[in-house]
Amino acid sequence: MAVRRFYLCCLMLGSLGSLCILFTIYWMQYWRGGFAWDSSNLQFNWHPVLMVTGMVVLYGAASLVYRLPQSWVGPKLPWKVLHAALHLMAFVLTVLGLVAVFKFHNQKHINNLYSLHSWLGITTVFLFACQWFLGFAIFLLPWAALWLRNLLKPIHVFFGAFIFSLAIASVVSGINEKLFFSLKNSSKPYSSLPSEAVFANSTGMLVVAFGLLVLYILLASSWKRPEPGVLTDRQPLLRDGE
Amino acid sequence: MAVRRFYLCCLMLGSLGSLCILFTIYWMQYWRGGFAWDSSNLQFNWHPVLMVTGMVVLYGAASLVYRLPQSWVGPKLPWKVLHAALHLMAFVLTVLGLVAVFKFHNQKHINNLYSLHSWLGITTVFLFACQWFLGFAIFLLPWAALWLRNLLKPIHVFFGAFIFSLAIASVVSGINEKLFFSLKNSSKPYSSLPSEAVFANSTGMLVVAFGLLVLYILLASSWKRPEPGVLTDRQPLLRDGE
Repeated sequence: MAVRRFYLCCLMLGSLGSLCILFTIYWMQYWRGGFAWDSSNLQFNWHPVLMVTGMVVLYGAASLVYRLPQSWVGPKLPWKVLHAALHLMAFVLTVLGLVAVFKFHNQKHINNLYSLHSWLGITTVFLFACQWFLGFAIFLLPWAALWLRNLLKPIHVFFGAFIFSLAIASVVSGINEKLFFSLKNSSKPYSSLPSEAVFANSTGMLVVAFGLLVLYILLASSWKRPEPGVLTDRQPLLRDGE
Repeated sequence: MAVRRFYLCCLMLGSLGSLCILFTIYWMQYWRGGFAWDSSNLQFNWHPVLMVTGMVVLYGAASLVYRLPQSWVGPKLPWKVLHAALHLMAFVLTVLGLVAVFKFHNQKHINNLYSLHSWLGITTVFLFACQWFLGFAIFLLPWAALWLRNLLKPIHVFFGAFIFSLAIASVVSGINEKLFFSLKNSSKPYSSLPSEAVFANSTGMLVVAFGLLVLYILLASSWKRPEPGVLTDRQPLLRDGE
């Protein structure tokens, strides 16, 4: 029963995550002219797609690796490698998303990093980089002492969730900002809620709903990998499903 | 030692929270002409001040009531009443903040609730209202069964933190949006980072830093009220400070 509930949650998560990416692509393709990698407006369009895919959906999925019941038994190392590799992929997509907006700004002689959205976004990416390197050095490489790992683990989990929340806040402020730009000289301004605005606002709310589900599974659910030697009420869930 | 660290955290929290409010007031007073309650632009200026004060600073402080070592001993009821009363005050300020922006919009014939900021903001306030009433009915009134309280408590704590995170995201997108509006026809646009933009962006980053500290104390610190009958390593902290 508990396993079924977990996989139902995963199905919801997968659907919501896919919808977030598909909605962002559709918004950029249908209303903003599609994609290119040539420093034009179409280069900018990669920015929201790569940020939502990397910093939100892939990051969210990567953070939940240890919630999979399969990860609870056997050696932890393969799951650590998967956790780190997925986050690295998320980081690469995020950096590409930054390159897209920087190239577009430079070509158009628009200053970089002036809005609060960009300040928060770049802080989020910087914290993500620190978190990844610290996680790699402390938890994946074999040299850190156990007491250090035990000390840093709750901080790693907390900052993982906090950086994810900052990513959601960055995406929300970014979608809001993009709509004000795009619909500024439109015959149907943002305040008249044209179909593009309804669609992109809904994309933002989907991202928030995805964030809610990730944070719930990460922080509030009982689907946590039992610590070695600790017998918890979560273990029956594992045996239940095998 | 642990008590000293806790009160140092509280001092930081108080300072950061006060700075968030003071910076928002100063931004509205110095660059946006001050305050009035007459449906004009000056009425709008109450909106950011009341939202930052109510939905962020007071809400954040209210959520940490049970982290005070004094709350760990003796009857829980007075602390529950304080927790609910502070949140109610936060809610009243939030509603006044909404009234300020609605009155301004109506007077200027601007549509309400069109931007993603407003969609997220109104969702946050709605969830806050649900959370308060559910919390009041289940945890403060004496009629709910213990099993129901135990079932809902982690959900209440999780949603408390989640709603707070949504409030931070709403404030960030709101400051971003306000700066695009205010500096639209200015000789120094937002992209040239005039002093108002630097100041208001910094206000947004202060709000994020305040959010980080609240969520850390709420979710990741060991300063939690021990459950009745459970002897934990946190209790020495209490005896230490008395």
